[in-house]
Amino acid sequence: MGNERIGHEIHLKERPVGIPTENSFELVSVSVPNPKEAQFLVRNVWMSVDPYMRGRMREAKSYLPSFQLNKPLEGDCVGQIIESKNNRFKVGEYVLSNFGWREYWISTDGNDVTKIDAKEAPIQRYLGVLGRTGLTAYVGLLKIGELKGGGGNKTVFVSAASGAVGSVACQIAKIKGCHVVGSTSSLEKVKWLLDEAGIDYAFNYKVGEDNISSELRRVCPNGIDIYFDNVGGRHLEAALDNMKVFGRIVLCGMISQYNVDTFPSTRTYNLFLAIRNRLKIQGFIVRDHYDILTEFCTNMSKWISEGKIKWEETVFEGLENASKAFIALFKGEKMGKTLVKI
Amino acid sequence: MGNERIGHEIHLKERPVGIPTENSFELVSVSVPNPKEAQFLVRNVWMSVDPYMRGRMREAKSYLPSFQLNKPLEGDCVGQIIESKNNRFKVGEYVLSNFGWREYWISTDGNDVTKIDAKEAPIQRYLGVLGRTGLTAYVGLLKIGELKGGGGNKTVFVSAASGAVGSVACQIAKIKGCHVVGSTSSLEKVKWLLDEAGIDYAFNYKVGEDNISSELRRVCPNGIDIYFDNVGGRHLEAALDNMKVFGRIVLCGMISQYNVDTFPSTRTYNLFLAIRNRLKIQGFIVRDHYDILTEFCTNMSKWISEGKIKWEETVFEGLENASKAFIALFKGEKMGKTLVKI
Repeated sequence: MGNERIGHEIHLKERPVGIPTENSFELVSVSVPNPKEAQFLVRNVWMSVDPYMRGRMREAKSYLPSFQLNKPLEGDCVGQIIESKNNRFKVGEYVLSNFGWREYWISTDGNDVTKIDAKEAPIQRYLGVLGRTGLTAYVGLLKIGELKGGGGNKTVFVSAASGAVGSVACQIAKIKGCHVVGSTSSLEKVKWLLDEAGIDYAFNYKVGEDNISSELRRVCPNGIDIYFDNVGGRHLEAALDNMKVFGRIVLCGMISQYNVDTFPSTRTYNLFLAIRNRLKIQGFIVRDHYDILTEFCTNMSKWISEGKIKWEETVFEGLENASKAFIALFKGEKMGKTLVKI
Repeated sequence: MGNERIGHEIHLKERPVGIPTENSFELVSVSVPNPKEAQFLVRNVWMSVDPYMRGRMREAKSYLPSFQLNKPLEGDCVGQIIESKNNRFKVGEYVLSNFGWREYWISTDGNDVTKIDAKEAPIQRYLGVLGRTGLTAYVGLLKIGELKGGGGNKTVFVSAASGAVGSVACQIAKIKGCHVVGSTSSLEKVKWLLDEAGIDYAFNYKVGEDNISSELRRVCPNGIDIYFDNVGGRHLEAALDNMKVFGRIVLCGMISQYNVDTFPSTRTYNLFLAIRNRLKIQGFIVRDHYDILTEFCTNMSKWISEGKIKWEETVFEGLENASKAFIALFKGEKMGKTLVKI
């Protein structure tokens, strides 16, 4: 046992109130066991940080169990097999799994991982456009938003439009022929949305947070067919004000609400417009839609190879910076997919 | 011209603020013209008052045009033809139309009416269970609420459960085999829902308006599959707290919101639960669903003949009491369908 391996992982030290700070997290050293029969040892290379993780930091029930205090957090990651006693999984292969926020982990039988092909695409892409992030945009827009049949003449509004999911949603809508409007939080992001993602109109909502509704009225004078909501709160109200009859609101995320602990302070006051305009407002979670994973991978790979999907990655170096990366999600400073390189 | 006929109609005198009072309405005498070629003259016998009419009293756009000031209001009515110069429409026949709030009116060509058979059912029933009211409950529950395939083991919650639409929705849900819970506003109505409509549990929400959510948790411990919303506001929030995963919320009406003029005072603070629980929240208006009118009439007539649908009618006598009848809708004192006998 002279070659004992020491790894690091990040534990949830306390349940955050409001926007999390580094006080809620702790970097812990642990001894890494050797794999037993049928097991293999993985060293993480990339991990994803995502806004939905904030929900799991609460004690309240979420669609996934709450994170436990003084245990490692979880999340999507890509790692390389470095020791294996399972002949289906070979040293050097890469796997996608949910054991993020740590350097090393043991798979007991390989049923909790998906092999990925490092020759097909850079491995971190399986955490972004080619992974759950891209699939979320795809499912939300095409299935929940009912854009499947084609989007000619449709107007699509996306909030947090330069974010990981939003930026992909914007570009799928463009591929489908829609008129696409995005809201984001800086001039630099507006520029990226117009010049790189190629959407039709983008605005910085921080310039006048009370005016999102009138801005939408100005740029979508005939109304919005599909609102892809990543934000909730005022964005949702503003979209409700401007939906077309029979429009669809896709509730993908509500980042404006995740750090609010006294819910009555938040509001959606104009939901009655959903009756007048016969709106469908539907929440979804990507895990329920893995049935279209193959269709998604085929289409997305094709679109990427045709240069139709662009994306940004914000990379934090080192597991010790994972909590910084997570906290940055709520400050709206970063663009595209936020990743940690371990 | 010795036999000039004088009729009465009710005009909107001013746009109400808050709950309407009689000051907003005016009974006006008018001279009734004689029908010309292809026209016929109708004398109204029954008219319907409905909460949605409040929306048309605003200046703001509604799904129907705003009522005009100093013009007669509109609404569903059943009348009898008393003079005709159109050979498709004979004196003595009954027609359903939208020219309520007046004693007499002229149809220019008969394309704005539907003939009804007075031998099939009492004529006022075409304004209630056999008319738009019944169809609203039917479409909302079966089509928007997706109960079409059958409702065994499903839990359905209906607000304003003893109202015109709510009481029919409750009973259709029972016919489909659901566990049905209703909220209403008096002990007498609770008794009617349990003893006459035969639902499983009914409560008077006025006993503890802040406790609708905990009451629902107590009586629907496994959650709600379909919430048929006639009320909005706190009822909607309470239902959101208690929906099952993949539940549906049918937005039929929001009577709690119709008389609110400063919308920010209303709220729905827990809409984020629609994501966690993958809810579909959908508004609808019955006029979009006349394609299933024949199916509805067949089923509803059958259910009525089998004694499976019961209803109450609250009748106000005389056109001069139509505004009283309308105002009573918002006081929640009356049960079932509110009608005016002219």
